[in-house]
Amino acid sequence: MKISSRDLEMQESPIRKLAPYADKAKAEGVKVYHLNIGQPDIKTPVEMQKAYSEVPDVIAYGPSNGLLEYREKLADYYTGIGQGIKSDNVFITTGGSEAIIFTLMSALSPGEEIMIPEPFYTNYNGFAAMAGVSVVPVTTSIDDGFHLPSIDVFEEKLTDKTRAIMFSNPGNPTGVVFSREELEELIAFAKKHDLYIISDEAYREFTYGESKTVSIMEFKGIDDNAILIDSVSKRYSACGARIGWIITRNKKLLDLILKFGQARLCPPTVDQIAALAAMDTPRSYFEEVVKEYKGRRDFAYEELISIPGVIAKKPEGAFYMVLSLPVEDADNFAKWLLSDFRLNGETTMVAPAGGFYSTSGLGKNQVRIAYVLNKNDLKKAINIIREALKVYPGRL
Amino acid sequence: MKISSRDLEMQESPIRKLAPYADKAKAEGVKVYHLNIGQPDIKTPVEMQKAYSEVPDVIAYGPSNGLLEYREKLADYYTGIGQGIKSDNVFITTGGSEAIIFTLMSALSPGEEIMIPEPFYTNYNGFAAMAGVSVVPVTTSIDDGFHLPSIDVFEEKLTDKTRAIMFSNPGNPTGVVFSREELEELIAFAKKHDLYIISDEAYREFTYGESKTVSIMEFKGIDDNAILIDSVSKRYSACGARIGWIITRNKKLLDLILKFGQARLCPPTVDQIAALAAMDTPRSYFEEVVKEYKGRRDFAYEELISIPGVIAKKPEGAFYMVLSLPVEDADNFAKWLLSDFRLNGETTMVAPAGGFYSTSGLGKNQVRIAYVLNKNDLKKAINIIREALKVYPGRL
Repeated sequence: MKISSRDLEMQESPIRKLAPYADKAKAEGVKVYHLNIGQPDIKTPVEMQKAYSEVPDVIAYGPSNGLLEYREKLADYYTGIGQGIKSDNVFITTGGSEAIIFTLMSALSPGEEIMIPEPFYTNYNGFAAMAGVSVVPVTTSIDDGFHLPSIDVFEEKLTDKTRAIMFSNPGNPTGVVFSREELEELIAFAKKHDLYIISDEAYREFTYGESKTVSIMEFKGIDDNAILIDSVSKRYSACGARIGWIITRNKKLLDLILKFGQARLCPPTVDQIAALAAMDTPRSYFEEVVKEYKGRRDFAYEELISIPGVIAKKPEGAFYMVLSLPVEDADNFAKWLLSDFRLNGETTMVAPAGGFYSTSGLGKNQVRIAYVLNKNDLKKAINIIREALKVYPGRL
Repeated sequence: MKISSRDLEMQESPIRKLAPYADKAKAEGVKVYHLNIGQPDIKTPVEMQKAYSEVPDVIAYGPSNGLLEYREKLADYYTGIGQGIKSDNVFITTGGSEAIIFTLMSALSPGEEIMIPEPFYTNYNGFAAMAGVSVVPVTTSIDDGFHLPSIDVFEEKLTDKTRAIMFSNPGNPTGVVFSREELEELIAFAKKHDLYIISDEAYREFTYGESKTVSIMEFKGIDDNAILIDSVSKRYSACGARIGWIITRNKKLLDLILKFGQARLCPPTVDQIAALAAMDTPRSYFEEVVKEYKGRRDFAYEELISIPGVIAKKPEGAFYMVLSLPVEDADNFAKWLLSDFRLNGETTMVAPAGGFYSTSGLGKNQVRIAYVLNKNDLKKAINIIREALKVYPGRL
């Protein structure tokens, strides 16, 4: 039996290709520190946990665009960020993933193109494949801390099929936080060419003092262009709740998004009730969490750049950073860590960064680190990288 | 701003077009009996409700194909139905909706065709549009109780683009339950032409004595063709939990489904925990529920066919039936019920069946009834239809 031609477009991520090596190491009794994934160890707020017991007698379908009370409360959250955002501008989805899938399917026709600064979140490739649209990468550099290149670079990549620009801000995998000025330039470009701007702000609360997240919803005159993607996953350390949302003032686009939403009926009902309750989480929870991540970032960054040959810019947000390593092939290094290197019976798993680039060959000597472990584990995990690089046969 | 060309393919269902009329009636203080939707009034089993409080400290991502323990227990459920179904053959999804979307995206390439007996569940159109595939309807008749037509009819509709056949069994909106013999003929046809057979068995537990659901997984020699779709929605009256699954023995297909699954990360974690607990629901719960629906079906059927001019066959499963009414246009009749007809300040909402047909013009005088109300309400709701037909100006 033939399967879909989409098989060619749906790549397996390099992290997943590594999984068997990690499993093998664990089976041998080796402790593996996971710096490769964005699954935080932070506890979900009790307000949210408790609300899961508020199960209705009949767990019925909810509205396709989400529970009204939740949409209203989310609209309130953006007061002061995006003026005039009402519950009607909010569309609840099953995680940020579905938010992006519905956005791409609604904003772009099959065969059209979307520009994405690279390195970018690998799953954007899968979502684009589902929507039948092509990703056009716009390369950013580790030397600039992965900030946007000059608009000329975007202009060069523009074709008559370009319909949208998408990015995550704060950035996964880079930790970059875009400045108001660079967003203004990008917006001018998008307006000039009638492009959608899809701003994935799933990490919007995670910035560490120097630069706050500037939301796409703060800008005037782009009501029809601007689409914000957000989710409870990272904010409340509730990745498994699968609640996300789309915010846009583009009514025509929302009407089409609703049709996709109606086809799949509704997002999960009880998780929405819990996500609504999560919004009563006291400010102190976030202050604690951000303080914790800031401490981890500072620690991880200082430790990592003290390793000879390692290059990185201090990330400004999210909980990732991309490092350049003194190795020829980070993919092989990551495999070797799992298969061959042990320090006191322990090793570290990192995400080779090549998979975050769409342009083949880029990021070959880079890895992504997620600082989602406590400082003690982080210290051991990074020390393993330090010691491993001293003896790695493929070291440059 | 241009939106996606998919807008043309994503139709709004005729039921949704009626919603404003229902809202208006309610705003005027009219009580509306909803025979138009498949939202049961049955309580979710307490086993499932209680399990929602078993929230982990960190609501983390689960595996992309679902929690292993749940997949194992689901595999057990099919013991005796489908021989040799293991946890690896089960893929958990966010509702039956996502199960169908992933199946269509994995089994068919964009531009290929899927045959579906009509009338069929309207959202199949939306899923096909998302996957970029064309629906080829195979018309069934109310006179045969919507059983499958002769295989010649399928042969006539076959093209070199046909890749799959899909149906719901027991049927929504028809209540048909396919016999072993008619499935055997369809399977022979599918094998001959290398087609996938997608059997949506969401209502598999809801049959009323005469014919039990024959699962696609019971048949030998079609390991690569057969795909079963199922869900907790109707079985546990837990539509809002959004947990469904795909079962297939086709390993290559499952590998591609997993890629789509990985892109969207995972189905909701706590809902899976609850769905797992739901499997400990005592058999008596289902016996009660099926007894209740059987009673409602018998009652609704007898009442409805006693109305002069109404034609129907007794449905064998699910909780729907399609009626032929003595009216020219059921769409107008449904609107008129909501806008103009009142019996003691009450009226009834039905689903015009035209939207369940893909062939334009079919089902124009038919409606779908969902017997999801208690018998007392059902009696009043049907009596409204009886009285309405006596005075409806568009009566034939």
